[in-house]
Amino acid sequence: MSNILTSRKQDYAQWYNDLILKGGLAEHSDVRGCMVIKPYGFALWENMRDVLDKMFKDTGHQNAYFPLFIPKSYLSKEASHVEGFAKECAVVTHYRLKNDPNGNGVIVDPEAKLEEELIVRPTSETIIWSTYKKWIQSYRDLPLLINQWANVVRWEMRTRLFLRTAEFLWQEGHTAHATREEAIEETVKMLDVYATFVEEYMALPVIRGVKSPSERFAGAEDTYCIEALMQDGKALQAGTSHFLGQNFAKAFDVKFADKDNKIEHVWATSWGVSTRLIGALVMAHSDDEGLVLPPRIAPLQVVIVPIYNKDAEARQKIDDKAKALVKELQLKGIRAKFDNDDTTRPGWKFAEYELRGVPVRIALGARDLENNVAEVARRDEKTKSSVSLDGIESHIAQLLTDIQTNLYNKALAFRTENMRTVDSWDEFVRVLDETPGFVSAHWDGTAETEAKIKELTKATIRCIPLNNVQENGKCILTGNPSTQRVLFARAY
Amino acid sequence: MSNILTSRKQDYAQWYNDLILKGGLAEHSDVRGCMVIKPYGFALWENMRDVLDKMFKDTGHQNAYFPLFIPKSYLSKEASHVEGFAKECAVVTHYRLKNDPNGNGVIVDPEAKLEEELIVRPTSETIIWSTYKKWIQSYRDLPLLINQWANVVRWEMRTRLFLRTAEFLWQEGHTAHATREEAIEETVKMLDVYATFVEEYMALPVIRGVKSPSERFAGAEDTYCIEALMQDGKALQAGTSHFLGQNFAKAFDVKFADKDNKIEHVWATSWGVSTRLIGALVMAHSDDEGLVLPPRIAPLQVVIVPIYNKDAEARQKIDDKAKALVKELQLKGIRAKFDNDDTTRPGWKFAEYELRGVPVRIALGARDLENNVAEVARRDEKTKSSVSLDGIESHIAQLLTDIQTNLYNKALAFRTENMRTVDSWDEFVRVLDETPGFVSAHWDGTAETEAKIKELTKATIRCIPLNNVQENGKCILTGNPSTQRVLFARAY
Repeated sequence: MSNILTSRKQDYAQWYNDLILKGGLAEHSDVRGCMVIKPYGFALWENMRDVLDKMFKDTGHQNAYFPLFIPKSYLSKEASHVEGFAKECAVVTHYRLKNDPNGNGVIVDPEAKLEEELIVRPTSETIIWSTYKKWIQSYRDLPLLINQWANVVRWEMRTRLFLRTAEFLWQEGHTAHATREEAIEETVKMLDVYATFVEEYMALPVIRGVKSPSERFAGAEDTYCIEALMQDGKALQAGTSHFLGQNFAKAFDVKFADKDNKIEHVWATSWGVSTRLIGALVMAHSDDEGLVLPPRIAPLQVVIVPIYNKDAEARQKIDDKAKALVKELQLKGIRAKFDNDDTTRPGWKFAEYELRGVPVRIALGARDLENNVAEVARRDEKTKSSVSLDGIESHIAQLLTDIQTNLYNKALAFRTENMRTVDSWDEFVRVLDETPGFVSAHWDGTAETEAKIKELTKATIRCIPLNNVQENGKCILTGNPSTQRVLFARAY
Repeated sequence: MSNILTSRKQDYAQWYNDLILKGGLAEHSDVRGCMVIKPYGFALWENMRDVLDKMFKDTGHQNAYFPLFIPKSYLSKEASHVEGFAKECAVVTHYRLKNDPNGNGVIVDPEAKLEEELIVRPTSETIIWSTYKKWIQSYRDLPLLINQWANVVRWEMRTRLFLRTAEFLWQEGHTAHATREEAIEETVKMLDVYATFVEEYMALPVIRGVKSPSERFAGAEDTYCIEALMQDGKALQAGTSHFLGQNFAKAFDVKFADKDNKIEHVWATSWGVSTRLIGALVMAHSDDEGLVLPPRIAPLQVVIVPIYNKDAEARQKIDDKAKALVKELQLKGIRAKFDNDDTTRPGWKFAEYELRGVPVRIALGARDLENNVAEVARRDEKTKSSVSLDGIESHIAQLLTDIQTNLYNKALAFRTENMRTVDSWDEFVRVLDETPGFVSAHWDGTAETEAKIKELTKATIRCIPLNNVQENGKCILTGNPSTQRVLFARAY
């Protein structure tokens, strides 16, 4: 059954694309660079979103909604922000169409030109900070802890489903604080929320770190990130949390009176994760047979497939048992389904659920029932075992936990294996080519060296890990002195 | 405390606007016609969305996500659709900005002009049906039951918070079926879902009906709607469900092979409700003191306000009791909060929670504790009573149910009172002017008469109620024969 997908060895990029399409997650739309997220992919996103949303609320954040459009002039208000975001974006210039006088459908009405063009938000710092100016006057209005779930648009020339699309879905947190310390604390707290989510729910270990200055978010004083490793040895930035200093407060003139009535600019953070996480999830765990989804966020955790024979009475018994079992599993909070669709055969269903990455499959036939057992298959290890029907719900619940842990451990082992410490340029180049992964190496701290390394090897500094060991060494490229190693990798 | 709002009598429109702003629901943004939905307003929307989302899923629908942008030519593919939607919309013409050579921020890069303009979706039938063409080949692919939660943009010249904004949030269901009958059944089923939601959660009675041909959705064969009555006697369309026939299937060439391998165009529906519902909610129940929110969707259902005296020990006892009570209420699934903020006085808090429409307020002071009671105030009736602390959680749970029912009954009594049957033109005009509400009257069934009545009175046909009584009569305007009464009203 494996040949419906290109294998990872054969062509990793093609395997990924096949999997997204055939696994029913998403597809390209007729609009350049924009994807359609299909029901199965969206159910996955809903599960991820719901967990994150609860984590945000548990840490004191509230949701709100800000406009899709940003006046063009707003983008220019923060100098480095405009450099990073004003370039590739969708620009609304008109607000009306009219019938083509030549009878060819509709044309843009030249009379309906906007005085100032509107940009479809690539990120919302500017429109939000122009609003915060009205909301913040006093220390009593702080901290302001707000999150938004939204669509954003960045005009990408080369797109890949989930990983890089012109429109994508994300959340963006935007907070305002009275002090630098509190804002930094928030930045790190939200990085931890992301790391916890990705590790505990997506079963994907991450490295927490800060970006080098050249990789910072446009307008940030510091960009914190979590970096994950994909099966092809490339890194993927799974989330970022920015300490924005007073840059946006100054750009939008947002000040507050502190307890002593002293007027100060407020301190800011922003942080976001997007549908890109689905790409990371797929690339981290899946195999040549299809998706492998961690139970905690899988849309469907358990599927029961009946193995009918021609005996109608036996069939009825299978149906009764399967329906009762689905109910019992659901009572335990497990997302379970009985697939008694008559139009497809068990073998077809097995392959289909394997492709879709359903963590546990239970097959139930007449002989199984006679023996009071079911055949339980786990997707992660592709192993099957015969399990007694007595107390099978508890067995399945435990199995889901085991699969979640196993996926994490496998990904961690893979990352450990592919995290190499390197001390010479030759070794650096060889490792990147022959055994790609994270490469821990000394760097002299200059943007020039960073750029040169990227140019020569396509590897970028993924991050300077938090709590990094300080040790003297020599930059792998220049030999200049360095005080710490940083993590390099080729990346998505 | 009432004077922070304009009263309804004085200026209903101003009262509404004051309430949305001061109640913390939303405000105008710097982008013309676009609103900012503030945290309290968004929490209300989240509660509404979550209930609806569950109702959609319980009726077999799945969520998906389609592109924000629609190629201009797609709008023209369904002839009547383009007439209705292509006019006032946001048009993306360029995909890049560049630095202004004169140093004034950024300008649109004339080199980055799109070959075909993109429209920011005003509704998604066209982009979705262009996708369904790829998804539907056989009867096995049907029915296709999909919903999308999204932002949409319709360039409105005169906007009002929630009621009419350029950008708004909504859900749009888009389904495909093998037969006309099944599609009509779906259309009515979703109308019923909306009616159930608005009546049981928003405590607002609605009339189910169909629109007259001139009020149909652009591209529909029939538009079903639910209509509610606001306190000023104006009607508000709270949701619509459209039977689209084969119009979009034909426009986008979506066909399927039935069981006999005969190729047919599929049948379609679409249905939607939006953040406009929040406007309806506010106008239906609120009063001159502030919002009145139905308990089932109120972000906060119960607030406990401590009445401290100077005795620290008594204060501690109040805190302990209040915290224990909040926990007990939360265990019952009640959204409760203890507001022990020291910086504001009880009177200020009372007014604030009244303004915000929190259904139940509990005040707890030292003397109350001595007497083992609390003062319980209900927002809907503005009455207070002393309630024993023994079993107060059950009392509150019941009270929330009572408030929900009471709000519905009040709204129903108001609507019944303001639903008048009229048989002459003079009476029709007088009723609309003196005692606005729904007016049930005979209409000759022509679009000309409908337009003339609208021109003369600003009243429109809100709907032809489902299961309408058939009776012979004469059109109130023309005197021509009519077979049934229809519902007129001035409307939002």
